[in-house]
Amino acid sequence: MKYVYLFSEGNSQMRELLGGKGANLAEMTVLGMPVPQGFTVTTEACTRYYEDGEVIADEIRAQIDEYLKKLEEITGKKFGDLDNPLLVSVRSGSRASMPGMMDTILNLGLNDQVVEAFAQKTNNPRFAYDSYRRFIQMYSDVVMEVGKKYFEELIDKMKEQRGVVLDTELTAEDLKELANQFKAEYKAKLGQDFPQVAKEQLLGAVKAVFRSWNNPRAIYYRRMNDIPSSWGTAVNVQSMVFGNMGNTSGTGVAFTRNPATGEKKLYGEFLMNAQGEDVVAGIRTPQTIDQLAQVMPAVYKQFADYAEKLERHYRDMQDMEFTIENEKLYMLQTRNGKRTAAAALKIAVDLVDEGMISADEAVLKVEPRQLDALLHPQFDAAALKAAKSVAQGLPASPGAAAGAVYFTAEDATKAAKNGKVVLVRLETSPEDIEGMNAAQGILTVRGGMTSHAAVVARGMGTCCVAGCGAIKMDEENKCFHVGEQTVREGDWISIDGSTGHVYIGEIATVEASLTGDFGRFMAWADKKRRLRVRTNADTPRDAEQAVRFGAEGIGLCRTEHMFFEGDRIKAIREMIVSETVEQRKAALEKLLPMQRGDFEGIFEAMGERPVTIRFLDPPLHEFLPTADEDIAALAKEMGMGESKLRQIVGDLHELNPMLGHRGCRLAITYPEIAEMQTRAVIEAAINVKKRLGLNIVPEIMIPLVGIVKEFSFVRGIVVEVADRIIRESGVALDYLVGTMIEIPRACVVADEIAKEAQFFSFGTNDLTQMGFGFSRDDVGKILGSYFDKKILESDPFARLDQEGIGKLVKMAVELGRKSRPDIKLGICGEHGGDPSSVEFCHFAGLNYVSCSPFRVPIARLAAAQAVIAEEKANKK
Amino acid sequence: MKYVYLFSEGNSQMRELLGGKGANLAEMTVLGMPVPQGFTVTTEACTRYYEDGEVIADEIRAQIDEYLKKLEEITGKKFGDLDNPLLVSVRSGSRASMPGMMDTILNLGLNDQVVEAFAQKTNNPRFAYDSYRRFIQMYSDVVMEVGKKYFEELIDKMKEQRGVVLDTELTAEDLKELANQFKAEYKAKLGQDFPQVAKEQLLGAVKAVFRSWNNPRAIYYRRMNDIPSSWGTAVNVQSMVFGNMGNTSGTGVAFTRNPATGEKKLYGEFLMNAQGEDVVAGIRTPQTIDQLAQVMPAVYKQFADYAEKLERHYRDMQDMEFTIENEKLYMLQTRNGKRTAAAALKIAVDLVDEGMISADEAVLKVEPRQLDALLHPQFDAAALKAAKSVAQGLPASPGAAAGAVYFTAEDATKAAKNGKVVLVRLETSPEDIEGMNAAQGILTVRGGMTSHAAVVARGMGTCCVAGCGAIKMDEENKCFHVGEQTVREGDWISIDGSTGHVYIGEIATVEASLTGDFGRFMAWADKKRRLRVRTNADTPRDAEQAVRFGAEGIGLCRTEHMFFEGDRIKAIREMIVSETVEQRKAALEKLLPMQRGDFEGIFEAMGERPVTIRFLDPPLHEFLPTADEDIAALAKEMGMGESKLRQIVGDLHELNPMLGHRGCRLAITYPEIAEMQTRAVIEAAINVKKRLGLNIVPEIMIPLVGIVKEFSFVRGIVVEVADRIIRESGVALDYLVGTMIEIPRACVVADEIAKEAQFFSFGTNDLTQMGFGFSRDDVGKILGSYFDKKILESDPFARLDQEGIGKLVKMAVELGRKSRPDIKLGICGEHGGDPSSVEFCHFAGLNYVSCSPFRVPIARLAAAQAVIAEEKANKK
Repeated sequence: MKYVYLFSEGNSQMRELLGGKGANLAEMTVLGMPVPQGFTVTTEACTRYYEDGEVIADEIRAQIDEYLKKLEEITGKKFGDLDNPLLVSVRSGSRASMPGMMDTILNLGLNDQVVEAFAQKTNNPRFAYDSYRRFIQMYSDVVMEVGKKYFEELIDKMKEQRGVVLDTELTAEDLKELANQFKAEYKAKLGQDFPQVAKEQLLGAVKAVFRSWNNPRAIYYRRMNDIPSSWGTAVNVQSMVFGNMGNTSGTGVAFTRNPATGEKKLYGEFLMNAQGEDVVAGIRTPQTIDQLAQVMPAVYKQFADYAEKLERHYRDMQDMEFTIENEKLYMLQTRNGKRTAAAALKIAVDLVDEGMISADEAVLKVEPRQLDALLHPQFDAAALKAAKSVAQGLPASPGAAAGAVYFTAEDATKAAKNGKVVLVRLETSPEDIEGMNAAQGILTVRGGMTSHAAVVARGMGTCCVAGCGAIKMDEENKCFHVGEQTVREGDWISIDGSTGHVYIGEIATVEASLTGDFGRFMAWADKKRRLRVRTNADTPRDAEQAVRFGAEGIGLCRTEHMFFEGDRIKAIREMIVSETVEQRKAALEKLLPMQRGDFEGIFEAMGERPVTIRFLDPPLHEFLPTADEDIAALAKEMGMGESKLRQIVGDLHELNPMLGHRGCRLAITYPEIAEMQTRAVIEAAINVKKRLGLNIVPEIMIPLVGIVKEFSFVRGIVVEVADRIIRESGVALDYLVGTMIEIPRACVVADEIAKEAQFFSFGTNDLTQMGFGFSRDDVGKILGSYFDKKILESDPFARLDQEGIGKLVKMAVELGRKSRPDIKLGICGEHGGDPSSVEFCHFAGLNYVSCSPFRVPIARLAAAQAVIAEEKANKK
Repeated sequence: MKYVYLFSEGNSQMRELLGGKGANLAEMTVLGMPVPQGFTVTTEACTRYYEDGEVIADEIRAQIDEYLKKLEEITGKKFGDLDNPLLVSVRSGSRASMPGMMDTILNLGLNDQVVEAFAQKTNNPRFAYDSYRRFIQMYSDVVMEVGKKYFEELIDKMKEQRGVVLDTELTAEDLKELANQFKAEYKAKLGQDFPQVAKEQLLGAVKAVFRSWNNPRAIYYRRMNDIPSSWGTAVNVQSMVFGNMGNTSGTGVAFTRNPATGEKKLYGEFLMNAQGEDVVAGIRTPQTIDQLAQVMPAVYKQFADYAEKLERHYRDMQDMEFTIENEKLYMLQTRNGKRTAAAALKIAVDLVDEGMISADEAVLKVEPRQLDALLHPQFDAAALKAAKSVAQGLPASPGAAAGAVYFTAEDATKAAKNGKVVLVRLETSPEDIEGMNAAQGILTVRGGMTSHAAVVARGMGTCCVAGCGAIKMDEENKCFHVGEQTVREGDWISIDGSTGHVYIGEIATVEASLTGDFGRFMAWADKKRRLRVRTNADTPRDAEQAVRFGAEGIGLCRTEHMFFEGDRIKAIREMIVSETVEQRKAALEKLLPMQRGDFEGIFEAMGERPVTIRFLDPPLHEFLPTADEDIAALAKEMGMGESKLRQIVGDLHELNPMLGHRGCRLAITYPEIAEMQTRAVIEAAINVKKRLGLNIVPEIMIPLVGIVKEFSFVRGIVVEVADRIIRESGVALDYLVGTMIEIPRACVVADEIAKEAQFFSFGTNDLTQMGFGFSRDDVGKILGSYFDKKILESDPFARLDQEGIGKLVKMAVELGRKSRPDIKLGICGEHGGDPSSVEFCHFAGLNYVSCSPFRVPIARLAAAQAVIAEEKANKK
């Protein structure tokens, strides 16, 4: 097994083995660019390291030795040599770019003797001792995990003694003394001498890189970005070049295009007489990259040439690092540059216009998730930089918002008339809808990515941070505590629903704007994709919004959300507390015109696009009041004894409402509800057809079917009522009756269900709940532990669990198609807007995905990328 | 398609097609016994009738006509003929004996003319008109569903007018007049004349039989007895013979052995000059069958011969009907006789001893469910007959009990010291354990067959009626209302956990006793079965009980049940409210010796039999108090602020605890719990091994695994702790670590899980909950509707849903064995004691089932019957 590669042995195709950085260093070497030579220890060595119980195998050590020798031959320098010492940098480099990994270690190879020789050879003792003390400090911090602060204290003390302010004012002697103090500190903390043998230093650094793969920040980042922990990281060992050798040396970073806007122009900065970390540290102000043309015109020209060559070679915007050592340019790194959503879009479109890439390739250049940023307000980048997050919850609904804090939906609604508002709740419930609608942002203490707050906020496109446990609510006193601070009603906070961060005070936001590039880009994606993209929308407003975002239909219209507004809640409550079928029918009679009106509005908004309407789904008690005073008020309003009402509410109580009296079970126990809803749907379709001449084919969806006879029973009601109304109206109307597949048992008997159902829509929220046995309202507490303990790498409510739940979906697809080859298959769970889940749906052979309006563009792009992935796989 | 068979065309093997009655009439015909001839309309005709939308197809009508002609030829009589009219009886007859089906219709074929002719021919006008008026009455009631009462009113009026008391005092003229009044009533109610055409009468009667297949009583019975509704019923049309032709005629019923005790002696009764219904009606007192030897010695001898011949032929105790018409004996029916559990056992053993059947056949002669009656007290049959049920709940745990009513566990415990007690609760919770243990019986208003009350009661062998919604609790006033009656604390009630009936007052009970036959019989079953039978037991007492009932190990020892007693609840509460790992460890340290002691007791009770111990499973908040005063008390006891405790309890609250923080999730968030439990199990095994020299191999079961890494994580803790303790003890000890398969996702990824788990135990309660999306605590409300609407035919928590949940189980078996061919597979859900589910487990290839102690004999027998069923299937 080969675990080590010279840069000259690799190329950019070997990313999985060499990591991104290693593969690109190899590629630049192959392209003949001036790269300080070195070698890469592979990602497989990292995996092996963990398999072996965090030990570097002898086999790997031997190969590192062997390649070190080769590097010495190439450079003509030697590790530990006093005449011509080899110094190296050690850097991590995984397959995907990942923050949180180990900091670079520079100047490795220095020791007490070598530093002397180095001082003489460079004729720059100050530089040599500065390098040495930095190396000791980095090595102690990064490899041995002795805190940085101990060394910084020593520096501060030295400066104080010398009566100077800046590090640069310290002399060579001071720095030599500091290096000695550092070594003593090292020994005091670790009980052993600072390693003087270069090879030992090197193995320590390699091990530190491997170890950093599993530090908490890295794990968190992987989870957020769906990177499997099995990938591992490579280690790049590169001979040092020095940008701090004097005024003819320097170092810098540059992008081939502007990473914020996408503008085609070299963008970057450099510092003369500096090493990499000085650029970042911000003590001296770097110059912009175009100033290099004045400072060193030849070097600038050479760099600009390489930049263009690399961009054309990689056919993407590059992010490069370089060092100038005594007027000689060295390329230290190149990679596809990170960019904002806006830049990603512009660059993708420009590269097509420049003939550099095809439309298909452009489609791959934008991460679907990034599109979100183009559709929502964001914090002003400069303002955000100055702000400090005080807490972090779940990024439940994207966008940024700032506003005055209110703790009840009622207060928020009132205050919203006079300004911006953030609604802060322990958790939201359907009664909060109006306040949620009025608020710029929503912050909840409890609940996960699919809690009520999260789902509703995403539907509305309102920013939401959910499950922010660091916030301690004190509802009584209308305030909350976070850390040492207290935020009272009316105080301003800012929340970022894309990151989950919460800030105290106001951070300026910038509005979203869709450029012309957006339309061109999405048209390429639409041309490519086969999956249709629908939306989950319950109101004409949402439906219109979704159509603007490219929705091709409604995959889920939740009829219950319509029941919370104004007078309707009265009627629905009347329906629920009815004691006879007649009473219930009378109450439903009141709801009928309202529902019919809703459906007419939605049909009008959607035109002839398909609309799937789900029949009443939630447990009825969700509609009832729980607080004593509310019960009293309702009883009075309804002319019912308070204790009677309390008894009815009590009877409706369930220990596990998610597994209770809901979904089609409501229509089975109270068929008159299904009758009313059928009437409302069919009459609305007929009315709109008559009025506008639109050919509407409503799709009626029976939720929560687990037993084929449940479906048959409700379908029987629907068909009977619908056919009668159609007959009586004299207007021809087609309609479909299908079901949600969201109960595990339904997947297993999908062949039976498909004999009667004309479509399936996978309700992957519930399927995930029941398939895993996780209550989506309670799972927040558990997920934290599961992430920490690496039991789960992502939230199965946000990203479809393909291994388990996905297998159930595939089973249902297969069985369903066996019984009814032309069955329409879709998904309407929250996963419908998650890129990796959309890809799964494509490969599982669904006809469409449905997601909240603001995720429609994401799904469109992800569906296109899935086709391209499929084509690639087929070519192989 | 042949839908009609003459009796002479059939035989006893054609039960599925001809129904039990039809097949046996055919068999007796074949055996040359004097059976009044007739024909059978098949069960397939019934199925066809429903498929066609409750219409008798022309094809079937034509065949009925054709066979009617054949019957006319055989009997020499003709439908509607005035000289020699054919009269027939029409009876239902399904594959399995089923009460609730249509009442017999006799004398069909009579009309206004025929009755006259019949009067002359029999020279008995009174008899003829009595037959006619009975026929009109039966036909109106049964076929046309005109209520009986209208006709009874007319009879009463007639008797009043005539000044007589008994029906028999009415004259022929009176009866003729009555027949006319009946026909007028028929016309008044139905708007049409009473049918005079015999064929029309016949088709009406056939249709009524078919219809009766779906009447509510029949549906209920099928549900209770797992009879699919697709079987349908056959219709037997038989020429009439008359036991009421005078004093040389008669009718009777008899068993070949005593159906209550099993004694080998003809047992039955007869009435001279009577028709079948008179025997049942109880107006005249019948004579015992041996008196027939005096009355008509030749007929008796002939009947006794037939009886013996039939028993030898069918090789089972027979239940026969006969009629004597003018000294000629006719056999009207034979069937295997229903018998009590005790009789079933004795007859099975006797038949083997008589050389009539093999041990295997004997094993099939007792219904597994029947065994229950041999293990529990039952109501005294005579006392029960006199009692009237006031309410019916679910038969949650078998047996009968009478006692004084108490409404809290505490009151029940106190009162039980002085007498028998029935604990009545809205629903029980773990805090009620002591009271449940002290009570003779438990009655709950809410909850299903697997509610807390039901599960615990079955485990204890205590009789329980659950989910009895007819009872209106008034806990405040310590009473309940049922109908118009009020039952107060201390009043006596009686409850029957085998039927669900509740009675006011005391009904005497008789204790269970196991005869020597029981042991012989069960030994035959044990020899046959391959499935091992374990028990679910949490205490040494239960374990010993189960061993007496034949348990071969413990399949499920629930460690949490041990936590509710006395001081333990304090320690567990301390553990739960701990804010640091150290506090939690200290509390667990207190629990350790208690758990270790429990396990030692159980290991000692079980000897070397395998014992599977499940780690802590329920949501922690189950252990916490909920009432305000209890919280105050606990806070005081623990030296904790009340509001602090309230906050902790609040934080533990979950919206859907069944899908919440429970099972292995507890061990993942609090590994120290798993550490303590491992220590308790392993140390107990070592101690018992040292003390008694028993080779104990504990099986540690991690519950609620849905993700393989959950299992790996907890298994890691178990192995680490166990191996260390074993090493330190110097005693060699083997142990297994396995998991419950109870999460739908686990079934889908069982291959992954089996790579690490040494055994699977299917937790079909939770698998049913999550597979169906039914909360077992709330499902009661829904099941009623589902049964009414024929969406479900049985409670999936009582009888494993083989079509859906069973498919998940099979998938897991297959995947599990693929990864680990020698994996141990068992089931420990409530289904482990349900006969049809046990059969399923046998065929699914499990190694064992585990059930509550009192169901162990049932499972042993069901497992043996499954082998015999398999052998039969293989022979085919």
